[in-house]
Amino acid sequence: MRLAVIAGDGIGPEVVAEGLKVLRSVAPDLETTDYDLGATRWQRTGELLPDSVLDELRGHDAILLGAIGDPGVPPGILERGLLLRLRFELDHHVNLRPAKLYDGVRSPLADPGSIDMLCVREGTEGPYVGNGGVLRRDTPHEIATEVSINTAFGVERVVRYAFERAQARPRRHLTLIHKTNVLTHAGSLWSRTVEEVGAEFPDVTVAYQHVDAASMFFITDPGRYDVIVTDNLFGDIVTDVAAAVTGGIGLAASGNLDASGTNPSMFEPVHGSAPDIAGQGIADPTATVLSVGLLLDHLGHADLARRVNAAVAFDLSTREPQAQVRTAEVGDRLAALAGG
Amino acid sequence: MRLAVIAGDGIGPEVVAEGLKVLRSVAPDLETTDYDLGATRWQRTGELLPDSVLDELRGHDAILLGAIGDPGVPPGILERGLLLRLRFELDHHVNLRPAKLYDGVRSPLADPGSIDMLCVREGTEGPYVGNGGVLRRDTPHEIATEVSINTAFGVERVVRYAFERAQARPRRHLTLIHKTNVLTHAGSLWSRTVEEVGAEFPDVTVAYQHVDAASMFFITDPGRYDVIVTDNLFGDIVTDVAAAVTGGIGLAASGNLDASGTNPSMFEPVHGSAPDIAGQGIADPTATVLSVGLLLDHLGHADLARRVNAAVAFDLSTREPQAQVRTAEVGDRLAALAGG
Ligand SMILES: CC(C)[C@H](C(=O)O)[C@@H](O)C(=O)O
Ligand SMILES: CC(C)[C@H](C(=O)O)[C@@H](O)C(=O)O
Repeated sequence: MRLAVIAGDGIGPEVVAEGLKVLRSVAPDLETTDYDLGATRWQRTGELLPDSVLDELRGHDAILLGAIGDPGVPPGILERGLLLRLRFELDHHVNLRPAKLYDGVRSPLADPGSIDMLCVREGTEGPYVGNGGVLRRDTPHEIATEVSINTAFGVERVVRYAFERAQARPRRHLTLIHKTNVLTHAGSLWSRTVEEVGAEFPDVTVAYQHVDAASMFFITDPGRYDVIVTDNLFGDIVTDVAAAVTGGIGLAASGNLDASGTNPSMFEPVHGSAPDIAGQGIADPTATVLSVGLLLDHLGHADLARRVNAAVAFDLSTREPQAQVRTAEVGDRLAALAGG
Repeated sequence: MRLAVIAGDGIGPEVVAEGLKVLRSVAPDLETTDYDLGATRWQRTGELLPDSVLDELRGHDAILLGAIGDPGVPPGILERGLLLRLRFELDHHVNLRPAKLYDGVRSPLADPGSIDMLCVREGTEGPYVGNGGVLRRDTPHEIATEVSINTAFGVERVVRYAFERAQARPRRHLTLIHKTNVLTHAGSLWSRTVEEVGAEFPDVTVAYQHVDAASMFFITDPGRYDVIVTDNLFGDIVTDVAAAVTGGIGLAASGNLDASGTNPSMFEPVHGSAPDIAGQGIADPTATVLSVGLLLDHLGHADLARRVNAAVAFDLSTREPQAQVRTAEVGDRLAALAGG
């Protein structure tokens, strides 16, 4: 397995080190190449993602990314120039985000019940395309636009992927989240696509909710969800709500998949670079380790992925509540459990 | 006070009746005109909002709206043709949504703390403008677009309104919610506007959060918010999250304000027409009554608004937990308290 590693900024290198520790414990024949990308490199050299680096990344089986970002960098530079550029160039059209409430994890909800959902967020379209502009900047007549672009091609493939995932789960239920009553053009394309693709999956039940209502149900009745499919921006928001109710961003894993297998997929914890706690060895590497689980699963090692996930589940159920996380200790425990 | 009443569909007429009962208890010299608009009228006549009705509405001091909607109507028809048309035609650029956790109300959060925020959602721009379209519909090459339009004029006036509200509150804190790291064009306009207008309000502290992070903090730390200002679509989502953590949509009030006073403002509960419980007399009219409070405040009757809000606060703190709501009984109690 040839893995490209982008440790990134802040706590990125710390959590990635533990993710690799766990990965090596189950897949010792791992070859890694480090890529120095992120805020630090940009601040030093002005470079974000050189074409040569992008080419090299394409030669790997997968990419593990820690975290990118620094408060000193203006908003959008690293996101548009590096993170989103990777997703778009490598055609990561499936942004996969499980949200499961593990035993032993405290939810902020008084009565969370059992939560186990899989969000399939579109990753290469919608309001994220960077289309739009500014007219008459810095005048009282300024106009700024953002264009959400949605294609049959792009919506169909992510909807199909979501149906396939739903079909493989016990509950076989898929919820489309959109805002079809206001965004009628894009909403109609999404609804019709779910209907059409759904005809090929008669054993999967389908529900629809507006994004505002869904954001409420994620809090009042999260147990009703199984697989979710949604657009890039709605997915950004609802997956953070899902992360919040399942114990927070410290546990939220994600995979940016080119489901066609043409380009390497990229796995990253949902959290940011958290500069406030960087270098102290107290960042929770669990989201990175769960992202490693998604990576293994994606590369066809379902058995190894299960070992990693089982290690996390065991570890979470036996952690002292409120105990201070020690990054390396969590990694050691998880590596011992998964590899042992 | 000349009030136009659009009771609407489902539970709309039931909750509006109680809202008017409470309003009359504090403002007996109320003149009302009923307007039959909504799903039922559309299904019967094909009419949504005749121009003559719109003209008549303009002649009133304010509008009270119950709920619009029916599952038999395709998505978008009533929203774009009636609800949003009213907001746009009457220039309701401030969509005001308080979210307060009242004593005696159960939050789904285990440890909600004290929550008292005021969301100022932009109401006439952003992705709600209805701009966009579909090309090559029903082919594999279909493209659907949605254009978010943001103007200096539109952003400035709602940001200014939010600063004024923040300045009048004890904490004097304003949070801008957007997604400036991805929607860089619109995000830049919003950020610069908050900075510029903020210079005129040196006693108001300002924070910024991305919409995904904010949606999480609404759940993990809602007490940190005072006044919030945000775009139309983000506001739609985060106000429902705020409603969820403060006890649900049955308590969520809203005002659609033309802050310039040129057009009548419109007040409505955030909940929908709830056809499943319509006609049973069990809908909670509290959100409508709180919307009447916003109406009174907007028309310059701050003292009467305080009476209505105090009645709601008292009633909520003394309700039997889990007791079945009886629409008319709640209205009777609130009218007696507010008017007595
Ligand atoms: C950092 C940002 C560009 C990114 C996104 O909006 O997708 C992040 O919030 C995420 O969810 O991975
Ligand atoms: C019904 C719909 C058009 C509306 C909106 O999206 O604004 C509703 O969700 C609301 O929040 O008032």
